[in-house]
Amino acid sequence: MPATKPFDLSVYVITDSRLSRGRSNLTVIKEAIAGGATCIQLREKDLPTGQLFHAAEALRELTLQKGITFIVNDRLDVALAVEADGVHLGRDDLPVAAARRIMPPEMILGVTARNVQQALQFQEAGASYLGVGAVFATFTKGNTGKPIGLHGLAEIVQRVKIPVVGIGGIKAQNAGDVVSAGAGGVAVVSAVVSVVDVAGATRDVARAVYAARSQQRG
Amino acid sequence: MPATKPFDLSVYVITDSRLSRGRSNLTVIKEAIAGGATCIQLREKDLPTGQLFHAAEALRELTLQKGITFIVNDRLDVALAVEADGVHLGRDDLPVAAARRIMPPEMILGVTARNVQQALQFQEAGASYLGVGAVFATFTKGNTGKPIGLHGLAEIVQRVKIPVVGIGGIKAQNAGDVVSAGAGGVAVVSAVVSVVDVAGATRDVARAVYAARSQQRG
Repeated sequence: MPATKPFDLSVYVITDSRLSRGRSNLTVIKEAIAGGATCIQLREKDLPTGQLFHAAEALRELTLQKGITFIVNDRLDVALAVEADGVHLGRDDLPVAAARRIMPPEMILGVTARNVQQALQFQEAGASYLGVGAVFATFTKGNTGKPIGLHGLAEIVQRVKIPVVGIGGIKAQNAGDVVSAGAGGVAVVSAVVSVVDVAGATRDVARAVYAARSQQRG
Repeated sequence: MPATKPFDLSVYVITDSRLSRGRSNLTVIKEAIAGGATCIQLREKDLPTGQLFHAAEALRELTLQKGITFIVNDRLDVALAVEADGVHLGRDDLPVAAARRIMPPEMILGVTARNVQQALQFQEAGASYLGVGAVFATFTKGNTGKPIGLHGLAEIVQRVKIPVVGIGGIKAQNAGDVVSAGAGGVAVVSAVVSVVDVAGATRDVARAVYAARSQQRG
């Protein structure tokens, strides 16, 4: 595994402009950072490259100012062009090993995994962390199949060496369980970006994460 | 301008699987190369990244075997991942200077330009060649505005130092005029990929290009 720059998956907020009540990603993410987001992922599947580049540029500037890790979903070219901290690859994106080959070694490579076999394969191919799920039922990403549950998440965490962030149907009420199952953090989309009070919703998720973590330690 | 690897724009064939009568890009491009294509561009705007990567991988292998220049449209990440010879950027793609910054200096950077101002700007930003048009009316790329004509093409050719390939509504019947106007080659889509005899259609375009070029010299 390459030595990447440090990153903190604790409260990992993913954009979805379709769910953001007409607010720009920049507006929403400013609020999320105010509420305690530790990592931001720009995920926009339907923008032309040029528009995605400009959206990424704005979030890169903001996250640099705030000292927050910034990841671009799918588009490694855009991630490279704006000097994002990393890229996150899902099932329909570049093969993990192919992406790793053309990335600077310090750049973070996140990969979505649904089961132990994928998790081990992607770790081997150079993933820096895994997004594992869907932990709970969700509609944010379209049809993502049957949730793997906290048990499925825990199984993967136990088998890999790299950090795991839980994703799928996570909100303040169940974020603690995800951390207790061994995840290094929780990824949230609609629980944060679709609500009126983005900062408040992020704060609730962050509290749940840190409470569960201090219980683990205590 | 960075020193890129050599390339030959003479007969520049661009894929469009929607126009290819159900044949794969690989099948069509094999025929085009047999007919004399000197440069291939993979242009598929609607494929998920993973599928585009696999399509690009197959064309990269073929073009390497045949010693033909291979360019990927828009997706610099895919171009880098399959070690394409270059990338071609249009209006909605990455900014030219941003792309150039993250490209190996020897990699070819093609850019679409519609007028002298854009042409000079993109040359300055690091373009290796320009795709200039639409020279004639075309429906292949959707609404591309009023054609610039042979006069508009000639004006741009005279103002830039980098090679220019004409694009838009070009077929065997008018390819010679495009070369006589100063273009280093012609880019064709539907004239080649949408017909039954792809090799024959490519051969006709190639003959027109080389005939016009030998007239210029003669």
